[in-house]
Amino acid sequence: MTMELYYWPGLPGRGEYVRLVLEAVDAPWRDMARLPERQGGGMAGLTAILGDPTEPFTPFACPVLKVGDLLIAQTPLICAYLGETFDLAPDAEPERLFARQIALTTADLAAEAHDVHHPLGAWAYYDDQKPEAQRRAAGFRSQRIPKFLGWYERVLTRNRHGADWLVGARMSYADLGLFQTVAGLRYAFPRRMAALDGQFPAVAAVVGRVAASPRIAAYLASDRRLAFNEDGLFRHYPELDDAS
Amino acid sequence: MTMELYYWPGLPGRGEYVRLVLEAVDAPWRDMARLPERQGGGMAGLTAILGDPTEPFTPFACPVLKVGDLLIAQTPLICAYLGETFDLAPDAEPERLFARQIALTTADLAAEAHDVHHPLGAWAYYDDQKPEAQRRAAGFRSQRIPKFLGWYERVLTRNRHGADWLVGARMSYADLGLFQTVAGLRYAFPRRMAALDGQFPAVAAVVGRVAASPRIAAYLASDRRLAFNEDGLFRHYPELDDAS
Repeated sequence: MTMELYYWPGLPGRGEYVRLVLEAVDAPWRDMARLPERQGGGMAGLTAILGDPTEPFTPFACPVLKVGDLLIAQTPLICAYLGETFDLAPDAEPERLFARQIALTTADLAAEAHDVHHPLGAWAYYDDQKPEAQRRAAGFRSQRIPKFLGWYERVLTRNRHGADWLVGARMSYADLGLFQTVAGLRYAFPRRMAALDGQFPAVAAVVGRVAASPRIAAYLASDRRLAFNEDGLFRHYPELDDAS
Repeated sequence: MTMELYYWPGLPGRGEYVRLVLEAVDAPWRDMARLPERQGGGMAGLTAILGDPTEPFTPFACPVLKVGDLLIAQTPLICAYLGETFDLAPDAEPERLFARQIALTTADLAAEAHDVHHPLGAWAYYDDQKPEAQRRAAGFRSQRIPKFLGWYERVLTRNRHGADWLVGARMSYADLGLFQTVAGLRYAFPRRMAALDGQFPAVAAVVGRVAASPRIAAYLASDRRLAFNEDGLFRHYPELDDAS
């Protein structure tokens, strides 16, 4: 059964968290954002899924994964579903719960990274909230980035199976989420992340390990991988970045 | 086995979502925020749980539920765990996934309600971001509240088991989350919620149904129920409320 991912075309955003899991498990899937509208893709396909008046499990927002007749929304839920279904998650129940917890925390961090450039709401333009974004960015850079990365570092160094992965003895969807988030932070806040270089060695190592895993490496080298840009969660506005 | 909930003392906040599920399932539990510090409660108990250097599944933040040796954090994950463990969740897998999706969306709404009074970050005082809070509040009131409530309304009216509950044929933890969120919105934005009165009848009905369910009614009438206040997620600042 070919799964279908529905997400905004042209930006990595939250959809990229799902794409990475789909690529890593090598399941049959179609990226509807890249298909023409006459094949159910693009914005028309997305609008149809979100607005279908007969759908009982109607999503609040995208990304949405369609698996047969079933729609699943909410990024950390989709990632956990795929990871647990396609063996990219720990087997033991306590570790499964912890992987879900990590994915939820990663989603919180991604939401905070978004709110840096839209502190007054996603419904208003960035250009209309630049001074406020600079104020929010200062606290995000100085307090929140080290707090989150410090937490991942502790999780890695306390993993009973070793610090290679966040939870369990193998790569899981939780590691993919950390990879995408750190890549996004490096894109959006290059000066701050350079200043923090070396402070979270286990995090940096797992990010490199994910990037070097065969299927992810092939995906990152392909034209399927969407580059970060100023429409996504992680945006590089130089005025929001600083070493501290 | 008596479960332990660790959360900030003195405010309902995210902990209240967990308390409602614990009350509804009538499981043995202790609310550590209400116990003295010499019994492992209060701020000292919370700090000890969050800071335990030997804990492999270390939480990023509270609330934290301790079940035997297992710590579970992230509000929607705790609620789903309790609901699925203590029969306050649908049985069928597609509906279980949808209940989790609803809980995640409710957590997003609660986070947005918080960000209304702290748009520049939770690390800065409300008094230092009042004009920005007023700008964010305008969009939250006019756009986000109707968008979220409209989604819950659609979910209820499309439930194949009837509009009594969000998912499945019985009350689930998803309904409890909607109850707490609507109660919080009514507390924080009484003029806006009054203006919307009657527009989301299925939502209003399920909120009343939850409040009237025997265990929740007993809880709400008890001194265990924490009133909303200006330390929590939902804060009543009159300058942030308006009919539109």
